[in-house]
Amino acid sequence: MLFQSTVLACKMNDKSSIWVHVPMTRSSIIEEGQLYALGFRFHHAVNDVAVLNLWLRDSESKVPNFSTHNVGVGAFVVNTQHQILCVRELRKNYMPWKTPTGTSELGESIEDAAIREVFEETGIRTKFHSILGFRQTHGMAHGRSDLYFVCRLDPIEEQDDNGNFVIPTPCAQACEIEIAEWVPFDDYKRMVDGEGSQKGHPMMSHVVHAYEMGRMIEKKVVESVVPGRPPNDVYFPR
Amino acid sequence: MLFQSTVLACKMNDKSSIWVHVPMTRSSIIEEGQLYALGFRFHHAVNDVAVLNLWLRDSESKVPNFSTHNVGVGAFVVNTQHQILCVRELRKNYMPWKTPTGTSELGESIEDAAIREVFEETGIRTKFHSILGFRQTHGMAHGRSDLYFVCRLDPIEEQDDNGNFVIPTPCAQACEIEIAEWVPFDDYKRMVDGEGSQKGHPMMSHVVHAYEMGRMIEKKVVESVVPGRPPNDVYFPR
Repeated sequence: MLFQSTVLACKMNDKSSIWVHVPMTRSSIIEEGQLYALGFRFHHAVNDVAVLNLWLRDSESKVPNFSTHNVGVGAFVVNTQHQILCVRELRKNYMPWKTPTGTSELGESIEDAAIREVFEETGIRTKFHSILGFRQTHGMAHGRSDLYFVCRLDPIEEQDDNGNFVIPTPCAQACEIEIAEWVPFDDYKRMVDGEGSQKGHPMMSHVVHAYEMGRMIEKKVVESVVPGRPPNDVYFPR
Repeated sequence: MLFQSTVLACKMNDKSSIWVHVPMTRSSIIEEGQLYALGFRFHHAVNDVAVLNLWLRDSESKVPNFSTHNVGVGAFVVNTQHQILCVRELRKNYMPWKTPTGTSELGESIEDAAIREVFEETGIRTKFHSILGFRQTHGMAHGRSDLYFVCRLDPIEEQDDNGNFVIPTPCAQACEIEIAEWVPFDDYKRMVDGEGSQKGHPMMSHVVHAYEMGRMIEKKVVESVVPGRPPNDVYFPR
């Protein structure tokens, strides 16, 4: 009983917990080593390795969660002609128009994720301006939670020979997007405000209000107080 | 070869992916079923179950991440005598004082997590006011990312017979906190601003500035547009 003696030895040495990393190709050891009966549980598993932990103290485990949230992004892109960039997804949607959205990848910044998703879905290149609001939702896929940030992005517009801004033409992404279009801002506003027979979108209605009032959450980059850490992305209301 | 025929059958039926849920006590099946060789990889594992996925299409996998982030909270609690609630942790810290902090539990709201951590660390009861700023950090434990929200909380102060507010006395949590104290706000500000020989805390210096300017990110609760979902917590700059 390899693990039983390990557990005993660690307890005698006043260790607080034991970690076991098990590759997929050696997974029988979890069953054969009776890790479940010894009290080990999965902490997480990624790619081809599962990681188990056993808390050795009488107190509640102080081993932090693996992770609880995903980060989603939405893009609020308004051009110099007071039009907002919208898409209609191929999978049926409850709205005639929505703003481009997506999920941030591990290690990606909020603004990079928003810029990437807009480019993937519409071909439009943008620059980050600010965050207009965010939402927390629990009970998503696999019981995880979601934080969703709406980013105000400025489209990159070229100027023609006469100095007029040229609005770039959206191009719908194959596979996911049926159509990508600049929609008159007031049409979008009426839709999310739920005017007429439309259902409305309470969150986006607040976002439109924040945008029209010039409210924003700005990004700054500050030095970390933890030695050796790179600078931090921080966000403040303004 | 149970799994090989399953994979074939799913491909023939144009399925996009296969999920396999394996309890710890049956983990040998991962090794014996040669799931690694068939291309399965761990999607996640929680408690006593590991979940594996195989993407069956030629395209890049569209199975979303399990989760990428944890959510941390900090509490900015200022009383009616212009003092801020601070703690000194038992584990050595780089600052003489810090504001109470912690990690939100799965399914917990940002403000509930902040209120809970303040009560656990200092015994002080508070009400949520607003969010003063947040930070994103990558490359934390197990390669996950962290979103850390600084919440402005108001301490609950009783009034005495003469109508004067009675400031509640902090009580340091055993095990983790050496001392919990109301610190003059200006002393805290000088510390985070890095005045004199102090190193300062660039993020908290910005938070102090946002607080002094009366800036905030407000919480609202709005109806979800997804049928059957409970209302959403949303946050907007004001």
